[in-house]
Amino acid sequence: MTRRPTINDIAEAAGVSIGAVSFALNDRPGVSARTRERILAIAAEMGWQPSAAARGLSVSRAEAIGLVVARDAATLGVEPFYMKFIAGLETELSATGTALVLQVVADHDRAIEALRGLWAARRIDATILTDLWADDTRIAALSSMGLPAVLVGHPRPGSSIPAVWSDDAAALTEALAYLAAIGHRRIARVAGLAALEHTRIRTLAFRAAATRHRLESAEVIDTDYTWEAGAWATEQLLTSARPPTAITYDNDIMATAGLHVARKLGLDVPGNLSIIAGDDSQLCEMAYPALSALARDVLAYGANAARTLLAHLDGAPATDFQDTTPRLLLRDSCSPVAPQ
Amino acid sequence: MTRRPTINDIAEAAGVSIGAVSFALNDRPGVSARTRERILAIAAEMGWQPSAAARGLSVSRAEAIGLVVARDAATLGVEPFYMKFIAGLETELSATGTALVLQVVADHDRAIEALRGLWAARRIDATILTDLWADDTRIAALSSMGLPAVLVGHPRPGSSIPAVWSDDAAALTEALAYLAAIGHRRIARVAGLAALEHTRIRTLAFRAAATRHRLESAEVIDTDYTWEAGAWATEQLLTSARPPTAITYDNDIMATAGLHVARKLGLDVPGNLSIIAGDDSQLCEMAYPALSALARDVLAYGANAARTLLAHLDGAPATDFQDTTPRLLLRDSCSPVAPQ
Repeated sequence: MTRRPTINDIAEAAGVSIGAVSFALNDRPGVSARTRERILAIAAEMGWQPSAAARGLSVSRAEAIGLVVARDAATLGVEPFYMKFIAGLETELSATGTALVLQVVADHDRAIEALRGLWAARRIDATILTDLWADDTRIAALSSMGLPAVLVGHPRPGSSIPAVWSDDAAALTEALAYLAAIGHRRIARVAGLAALEHTRIRTLAFRAAATRHRLESAEVIDTDYTWEAGAWATEQLLTSARPPTAITYDNDIMATAGLHVARKLGLDVPGNLSIIAGDDSQLCEMAYPALSALARDVLAYGANAARTLLAHLDGAPATDFQDTTPRLLLRDSCSPVAPQ
Repeated sequence: MTRRPTINDIAEAAGVSIGAVSFALNDRPGVSARTRERILAIAAEMGWQPSAAARGLSVSRAEAIGLVVARDAATLGVEPFYMKFIAGLETELSATGTALVLQVVADHDRAIEALRGLWAARRIDATILTDLWADDTRIAALSSMGLPAVLVGHPRPGSSIPAVWSDDAAALTEALAYLAAIGHRRIARVAGLAALEHTRIRTLAFRAAATRHRLESAEVIDTDYTWEAGAWATEQLLTSARPPTAITYDNDIMATAGLHVARKLGLDVPGNLSIIAGDDSQLCEMAYPALSALARDVLAYGANAARTLLAHLDGAPATDFQDTTPRLLLRDSCSPVAPQ
């Protein structure tokens, strides 16, 4: 159906009274537990969503936002981006007394299942979808269950879910332009997960810039963002026949791993190798030499995502929010290439 | 009352039937919303707790654990210990499909209020109390509301809440013994928050070790764990008349800040100053020179806390769990003091 389903539609589909549907949807006594579950399941399937006004009056608001993350739990604690993003969410959520329901699952199917369960039990009012894949089954599932949400990623044509995003292509294009301007002709990129939308966006931007600047080589190696993968990829690149003179990394941990590998191979950074890190966490400042990076305010990014979602829940139209574009912040890890 | 309150006690106190109490406690229809709230409030006040067997059968289990953190939300994202601890919790919680309800609040009063609200609404089954103060109002409040919990900190005499802890005193004592053995006579300590229990435990251990090793000076500066505070404290120490030749830090961020300050002041680490960091996050490996640290498996610490809590919820007796003692891991930031 294209119009919003009403309580009446749900009552018809479930074969119960409108009153019973109202009791069930508002989590009030008056229907049996079994009927309540059935009504909620039908409502979720029909994509039912209370109007903002009704939600404001409802006693069933959970005052909680769900964040279901599909990745290995142990990696959460070593990825500065993720943790700073969660802290950014909290700066907004804590101001409104809203809890964050964090659940770590194995994959997208489990994520959908977890969100459906949390939403059916009214343990969350909305969710924030992160780590978007280019082809992401969660987005259609969210729409069908009627769970309010924001996407952290580029707006999706055809989806009405508001997106909070930044221009990843522009940031990487700036980094390549800088490296080309100071004479680098062989530039490599140690990328993140190939399935992620922003990895693909960056890879396309990287290839386009390589063509524009007529680079001699522009190799891309996909990884899983870990220290180990960053070290391995760097070693592959630096021990090849025509090694790159500059490498960009999709996150900071891999850039720092790359710095260690270069040092181990007896290369001077930035004398023999220029490095640009992917996010600008404290790791970049702490490294020696301090790493140049694509700087973004991840805390503000998280706060903007939470603010957009809370406004949407309060009835604001579903408008996308473009966060500031990451900018190249130069520290001590880049230097010009001497003419050969 | 010293015995566990029963449903009967609650019915008497509330002036309602045992059936009404059962409906209210199990979140089933059959009582009005107002009566339900009153019954839950009385039950919470009496410290009512369902038996493990009853909980197993109950439909009201939230399958969620509460973590209410009283600190500035923005600092969460830059403290490797905290985020790794949360990731450690998730390794256990995700395996059992349990969600983590994370709420960031301003202070302990708000924390108690938030936990009371989450528990009354059955949005959480239990909580994990971190950042324990030497004098912590949350512990008595938890007991009175009957919310199952574990304490992350030393066991409390008189409290029946299980504690998951490690011997902070022993770790710091080992660090001091090492520094004294390689000739350091002026050793300072940049400590964490003075109100925290483990800060006090470490300060007592530090003072005792200083006396035992007959140190010439053993200054302690309390901080708020931030980079800025670590830098400020280090500068105070290193620009004093008789500066220390070694400094221990209560976390990694401050140790890294201290390394930067030493470099700025023209001091060589470890030639002029030895540094021991407080936790062993990746920051220590990434620093140059790599920092010696009191190493602990924070991921496992979080996992042990979650495991102890889940076992307690499933009816295991409330026994304390002592985690492994942090050990001094030597890297490149300590060196002997030359005889003067």
